[in-house]
Amino acid sequence: MKINGTHWRSIWWIDAQRGVGIVDQSALPHVFATLELPDWQAVAAAITDMKLRGAPLIGVAGAWGVALAMRDDASDEALAAACTALAATRPTAVNLGWAIERMRAVLLAHPPHERFEVARAEAAKITEQDVALCQAIGRHGATLIREAHERLGRPVQILTHCNTGWLAAVDYGTALAAIYTAHDEGVPLHVWVDETRPRNQGLLTAWELAAHGVPHTLIVDNAGGHLMQRGHVDLVIVGADRVTARGDVANKIGTYLKAVAAADCGVPFFVAVPSPSFDWTLSDGLSQIEIENRCGKEVRFVAGLDDAGRPAKVAIAPGSTHVSNPAFDVTPHRLVTALISERGACAPADLHLLFPERIQAQ
Amino acid sequence: MKINGTHWRSIWWIDAQRGVGIVDQSALPHVFATLELPDWQAVAAAITDMKLRGAPLIGVAGAWGVALAMRDDASDEALAAACTALAATRPTAVNLGWAIERMRAVLLAHPPHERFEVARAEAAKITEQDVALCQAIGRHGATLIREAHERLGRPVQILTHCNTGWLAAVDYGTALAAIYTAHDEGVPLHVWVDETRPRNQGLLTAWELAAHGVPHTLIVDNAGGHLMQRGHVDLVIVGADRVTARGDVANKIGTYLKAVAAADCGVPFFVAVPSPSFDWTLSDGLSQIEIENRCGKEVRFVAGLDDAGRPAKVAIAPGSTHVSNPAFDVTPHRLVTALISERGACAPADLHLLFPERIQAQ
Repeated sequence: MKINGTHWRSIWWIDAQRGVGIVDQSALPHVFATLELPDWQAVAAAITDMKLRGAPLIGVAGAWGVALAMRDDASDEALAAACTALAATRPTAVNLGWAIERMRAVLLAHPPHERFEVARAEAAKITEQDVALCQAIGRHGATLIREAHERLGRPVQILTHCNTGWLAAVDYGTALAAIYTAHDEGVPLHVWVDETRPRNQGLLTAWELAAHGVPHTLIVDNAGGHLMQRGHVDLVIVGADRVTARGDVANKIGTYLKAVAAADCGVPFFVAVPSPSFDWTLSDGLSQIEIENRCGKEVRFVAGLDDAGRPAKVAIAPGSTHVSNPAFDVTPHRLVTALISERGACAPADLHLLFPERIQAQ
Repeated sequence: MKINGTHWRSIWWIDAQRGVGIVDQSALPHVFATLELPDWQAVAAAITDMKLRGAPLIGVAGAWGVALAMRDDASDEALAAACTALAATRPTAVNLGWAIERMRAVLLAHPPHERFEVARAEAAKITEQDVALCQAIGRHGATLIREAHERLGRPVQILTHCNTGWLAAVDYGTALAAIYTAHDEGVPLHVWVDETRPRNQGLLTAWELAAHGVPHTLIVDNAGGHLMQRGHVDLVIVGADRVTARGDVANKIGTYLKAVAAADCGVPFFVAVPSPSFDWTLSDGLSQIEIENRCGKEVRFVAGLDDAGRPAKVAIAPGSTHVSNPAFDVTPHRLVTALISERGACAPADLHLLFPERIQAQ
C-alpha cells in the first residue's frame, strides 16, 4: 500500500536488536506513526492494546513475537511460555493460535541454538504467505464485484464493516483487497463505510480508501439496514476472525446485524477469509467460538481531534454508567452468500469442494 | 420525572413575555441546563437544532410555538407563516404536523384578538393530553413486561434504542414509560441501552434510567444482535416517529436492524406509539414516509467531556471524508410484534380493532 508515494506494509522486520516495526493503528487515522517492538513482550502488549489489529496481522505479529522470544531464550520452556502468553493476548481470531502453533511445531524440530534463525525464516514465510493469500482473495473477490457491475450496468454499491484492508493484514487486506483489486481493474464502485463502534475501525477503512482513491462514504453503524432497504447497497463484503467448518463467521461486533438485514433485503453477503482464519475443528460458531469482551472504556471514550487539531478523547458516558463491550459476534452460515478464500468463492455448503482435505462432504 | 428531588417536565410555559422553558437536551447528559424560548422562531430553531427532540415533545413544542406566534401577530397570514415554518423544522415525526394542524384548525375558528388566549389554552391541553397518553402507554407496556417476568421467573432483559423517556415527551415518555411503570410496580428488569449514534440519545436514556434507579447497561449499536442471539434479550421496546395505518414504523436510524435481528432470534419487538404518532393517511412506510437527512457533522463529531470534565467534542473523521446521515429508518409491520398505544397493545394487523374509527378491517 502506498502512503504519499511510499510503499508501506503494516509490519516489518527491522533487525535482531530492534525487532519488528509496525504502523501504530491506535493513532490512525489522525496521526500516521510507526512503533518498534523490540521483544516478544512488546509484541504481546501491542496486540492486546490493539496498536495492531486485524485477524491476519495479529497472526503474523504472533509469529514475529515467537521469533523475538527465541532470540532472548531458545529453550523449550521459554518457547512454551512465549507461545502461551502470545496466544492469550486475544481469544477470538484463530489466526493468532494458528501462526503460533505453526511456529512451535517448526521450532521444536530444531535444537535451541538454531531456533532464532529458523523462527525468523518461518515468520518471514508466514508474512509473505499472508500477502499472497490476500492477493488471491483480492482477485476472487474482484471477480464478484466485476460481475455485479456487468449485471447492474452502473457503479457497484458496496457496504463494509470494520477494517479489512492492508492495515488488518500485512498488505492488501481481505475484503478490502477485493475492492482495491476491482477498483484498480477499472470497475466503478462506491463503498459505504460503517463507522464500527466502539473502536471506529471504519475510520481506518475510510483513511485507506482515501489514500487509494476509492470513492466512499462514512456512515454510522445504524444506517446500513436503511440503505439496503432502499436499494442503495448491491453487496456487503466483510472479513472474518474465525470461520467454522460449516461457515459460521465470527467477525467484528455488528456484522450479524448487517448479515441479517442483507438476507431480509435480498442483498448478497460475502465474507473474505484467508484459510488461516478457518477453524476446521469447530462447526457451530454460536456455541463454540469464544467472544472477547473488552474494556468498557472503549465504549465510554471516543478518540479524535480536538478544536486545535490535536489528538484527544471525550467521555460520552460517566464512569458510573455500567457498560458491556462484546467485541465480536457470530453470523450463522445460513446468512452468508459466499466465503471468498484464496482458493475461490463458494457457498458455505460447498466448502468441502474447495477444501476437500479439510472437510468431507456430508 | 424527578431530578435530585425536583419534579421536571421537558417543556413548560413560563409567561407571555418569556415564552416556554425547556431542558436543553443538547447539553445532556453532561450538563443539566434549561433554556427559555421567547418566541416562535426560537422554538423552531430549538427543534431544528435538537435542543429538544422526541416525536411527542416536538409536537407539543410546535403547539407552543404557534401560541407564541399568536402573541406577536394573530393575523391569518402570520398564523399560516408560523405553522408552515414550524412544520418544516423536521419532516419525519408526524406529531409535529398533527399538533400544528390541530392548533390551526382551532385558531381559525376564532377572531385574531382571541387567538393568543385560545392558543395558550389549546397548547396546554395538548401538553396535558401528551402526559395522559404516555401514562396510559406506560400501563399497557408494563403489563407486557410483567407478563414476561411471570413467564420467565427472573428479571426481564429489555433492549431499547434512542431515547423515549420523559425527555422525548412532556413527562414519562413512551417506551421508557412502560419500563418506568413496570419498575415502579416492582417488576425486576434490566435495560440494554443502545448508544444510538450519531447523536447518542442512548446517553439520555442511561441518564434518565440512572436518575430513576432502573438497572441498565450501555452498549454500542452493534452489540444488540449478539445479545439477542445469546438469549440475553427477552424483548425489545422502542418508540416511533410516524406509524402508518398498516403498522410500518419510522423510528430512529438503526431501529430496523434491531427489528430484523429480533425476528431472526424470536425476540418480541414492541413499539410504543401514542395515537398522534399514527399517520392514518399512509400505508407503505418504506415508500411513503420522508426520511430526514441531517448534517454530516453529526457523524463527524462526537460530544462528551474532556479530561478536565468540560464539555468538548472531537472530530473522528476529517472534513474531507464524505458522510451520509439518514436520521430514521422504517421497520416494516411484519417485524413488529405489537404496537402499544394508549388504547392498549395489538399486532399491526389488529390495529382496526383498537382504532375502528380510523381503519376499516380488510
